[in-house]
Amino acid sequence: MNFLEERISKDGLVKEGNVLKVDSFLNHQMDVALLDQIGEEFYRRFKDKPITKVLTIEASGIAIAYAVARCFGVPMIFAKKAKSINIDGDMYTAEVESFTHKNKNKVIVSKKFLSSDDRVLIVDDFLANGCALQGLISITEAAGATVEGIGIAIEKGFQFGGRSIRNLGYHLESLAIVESMDAATQTVRFREP
Amino acid sequence: MNFLEERISKDGLVKEGNVLKVDSFLNHQMDVALLDQIGEEFYRRFKDKPITKVLTIEASGIAIAYAVARCFGVPMIFAKKAKSINIDGDMYTAEVESFTHKNKNKVIVSKKFLSSDDRVLIVDDFLANGCALQGLISITEAAGATVEGIGIAIEKGFQFGGRSIRNLGYHLESLAIVESMDAATQTVRFREP
Repeated sequence: MNFLEERISKDGLVKEGNVLKVDSFLNHQMDVALLDQIGEEFYRRFKDKPITKVLTIEASGIAIAYAVARCFGVPMIFAKKAKSINIDGDMYTAEVESFTHKNKNKVIVSKKFLSSDDRVLIVDDFLANGCALQGLISITEAAGATVEGIGIAIEKGFQFGGRSIRNLGYHLESLAIVESMDAATQTVRFREP
Repeated sequence: MNFLEERISKDGLVKEGNVLKVDSFLNHQMDVALLDQIGEEFYRRFKDKPITKVLTIEASGIAIAYAVARCFGVPMIFAKKAKSINIDGDMYTAEVESFTHKNKNKVIVSKKFLSSDDRVLIVDDFLANGCALQGLISITEAAGATVEGIGIAIEKGFQFGGRSIRNLGYHLESLAIVESMDAATQTVRFREP
């Protein structure tokens, strides 16, 4: 097991309905040393790509994107949910359905910050059905930018998001791929590398 | 002018209605080197306090909280907006009104992550009317924890939030306090130290 799989086994909580709670270290309370390590690991996996921007979606992707972006020395961008009066009209939009919150959000990225010259690394904390990721890919491609890679902390391997993204030819790296989990025994089984 | 005031003068945009857009470097696209510098500066200002947790609110506070928490070597927590099926029933809540989005949100922090032993540094990107900050203070105090300090990147000094927080006796440090701004001339005037 790698460092993240070990941490999930130790501190993750399995709830009924295929919910994996990692809120003590990844998406409510955050362990900053672990975030640093996640950033370094994604850098190791994608350092041969000419990344110019790291893109994520609010909220829990932000810390991971920052951790990765500082390793590459490039800016990070987070796609925002819904419309704020502080966002100009000129933006890329995508419709995203949340597995966790059971709702739909429009997510937006200002056209100022993505151009056809950009080589984008997309990152997020979770990948389940892949809706958030598809939104970020669609925004990147609407800008004429290149998706150089996708880095996910925790992929739910038993949902279809990861497979469909890989089938489309994207270079997707997930640090921990959960094959199955059991709320009764609190066990999490990971995909072998 | 300090490093953040200089950056605001250079890259901030003043819009009608007292809106200061810093979305090219602080709250949409993020300059990671600037975030690192913000973290180090808050550490310098609060390093004599026995901080055990850094607390912020999603979304744009997250990167700043991470930057600060890694300097202190403590976990960060972000208060979440609205209710997610991934949040247990046991949580501290506060009602927060957003100046930017003109709406109200319930924000929540799980009781697991704040206790009466905690010495909390609260951070956020903006302080205007102070509603978000009051929510974070109220959550910290509901946990019986101590607010050791409050660090804000940009305070709108012409709104009442900062004054009321200081009047209550909290140690509030804002890196840039905007006294006035003018959309016609694109000038921002900062409070002298």
